[in-house]
Amino acid sequence: MLVRTFVPAHITAFFVPLFHHDPLKAGSLGAGINLDKGTNVFASIERGTLERHIHIAFNGEPVKRKEAVISYSVADELVPNDFVGEVEIWQYFDFPNGYGFGNSAGGALGTALALSYTFGGTWLKAAQTAHRHEVLNRGGLGDVIAQLAGGIEVRVKAGGPGIGVVDNLFFGDYRVLVVPLGRLSTREVLDGDVVKVIEREGKLALEKLLRNPSPERMMVLAREFAEKTGLLSGELLELARELDKVISTPNSMIMLGRGLFALLREDEVENAIGVVSDLNLPYDVAGIHEGKPKVGRWVG
Amino acid sequence: MLVRTFVPAHITAFFVPLFHHDPLKAGSLGAGINLDKGTNVFASIERGTLERHIHIAFNGEPVKRKEAVISYSVADELVPNDFVGEVEIWQYFDFPNGYGFGNSAGGALGTALALSYTFGGTWLKAAQTAHRHEVLNRGGLGDVIAQLAGGIEVRVKAGGPGIGVVDNLFFGDYRVLVVPLGRLSTREVLDGDVVKVIEREGKLALEKLLRNPSPERMMVLAREFAEKTGLLSGELLELARELDKVISTPNSMIMLGRGLFALLREDEVENAIGVVSDLNLPYDVAGIHEGKPKVGRWVG
Repeated sequence: MLVRTFVPAHITAFFVPLFHHDPLKAGSLGAGINLDKGTNVFASIERGTLERHIHIAFNGEPVKRKEAVISYSVADELVPNDFVGEVEIWQYFDFPNGYGFGNSAGGALGTALALSYTFGGTWLKAAQTAHRHEVLNRGGLGDVIAQLAGGIEVRVKAGGPGIGVVDNLFFGDYRVLVVPLGRLSTREVLDGDVVKVIEREGKLALEKLLRNPSPERMMVLAREFAEKTGLLSGELLELARELDKVISTPNSMIMLGRGLFALLREDEVENAIGVVSDLNLPYDVAGIHEGKPKVGRWVG
Repeated sequence: MLVRTFVPAHITAFFVPLFHHDPLKAGSLGAGINLDKGTNVFASIERGTLERHIHIAFNGEPVKRKEAVISYSVADELVPNDFVGEVEIWQYFDFPNGYGFGNSAGGALGTALALSYTFGGTWLKAAQTAHRHEVLNRGGLGDVIAQLAGGIEVRVKAGGPGIGVVDNLFFGDYRVLVVPLGRLSTREVLDGDVVKVIEREGKLALEKLLRNPSPERMMVLAREFAEKTGLLSGELLELARELDKVISTPNSMIMLGRGLFALLREDEVENAIGVVSDLNLPYDVAGIHEGKPKVGRWVG
């Protein structure tokens, strides 16, 4: 049996981390966008071999446990103890790992949904399992619940699925430009002094957004957040300013990765791509994924 | 400007009502199915006339305030006080009103989403507004939050949007047969002595479902609930038994309407339709609506 799940890439616009010793109560406040590209997980389950094996691969390459702790932990928990057979989990990422697209949560949630679909369970329990291991292994705090909500999301109450509360903004026909330039360690940023500024500016951005909720306002506040926290600076800030010249809504920084994202109207796509391709920078253009991740039997 | 929303019809399989003086904390526990047919709401907004007018129509026929108290209350709240112009809300229902398809909540939520999309707001605030007026006017307790979740839903914590928690079951390729035979007053049922039995049997069904969550199990428990509460009896129960003979998963009663619903595998559709059409009964076959309601500008 082959099961496929799709979990959208999730870009955080601004955030407030909220730590808690209970991982289901840990989470984040903030806002972000779910893309129609992201993580595809294929779970192949074969019963009746002699032993119980779980294998995980990233983009076609098998990975060891220590390189995929979160997804292996999810699988260990959701494959029943008495199951004997081969479980292969193939994760394919549309964006590079560590660049701020929520791949870690995408792999964890996609794995949890595929295994729960196969072995029994519910959406909420699958999502809670993914969130728990994300938090315990410091993959992220808010990606799972954000990916579960889809669209342009606003985390208004922190916590894992079933505890946190996610709102959604209405949006029109937007394309999303992403310029993924490199990694930024969430762990290092959250361990640093900047976390106090992030908390203050993140809360402020959330308050302001909820007073006047719209995608355009979210981008303005994201940019303010990125600049005031000092996370967006130097060459990346210069690039953001160049990009602003050809689009109507400010672009901002992918939290947390070295990269930018922008909401584009259809008639802005060409010029925006022009700016980044003239500089020989990598980019991608995606749509916004509305609603939940997708789960189903794969026949084809 | 014309905005269109689609809100799925929601059939309750079993439930536990939970009353509370704060309407956002009132709600229900239970489970149900969202269909890919339901309520379409078209909101037409014209600015710049001399007065502020709000008009609502059901299936093309204008309705007075007292016939559409819930939707008018939602509109009064979400059309800004300083708006001057014409707001026309056209609600079209795929199923008859009062038959247990969540039309009242569908109209309220569709109206709230369309107006929030137009005048500003968020999904959560729109849904809370719809839920609040549903509860205050006793339209229903759990339809709005269930319709927001989509799919086959399980209300595991009662309350309105942002307070209640809704889980989802995984499901395969099912069609849903509905046999809508008449009205059943939610108000009368909930005011009667049966409410105690509903509470006991509803809680039991929910516990059992969460121990072994699947759509097939939900139908078995729904049927037990329907029979043990005495809501399903007489001719309707006889019809349910006839229908059971040609399908693999038990059918059950639409809560609350005089009608039945069943999950059908593709190869069961013809025989199931045969049973109801041989008796000259009305029926419809729908798919399951996954994810959130739809909202957007209507062009065409």
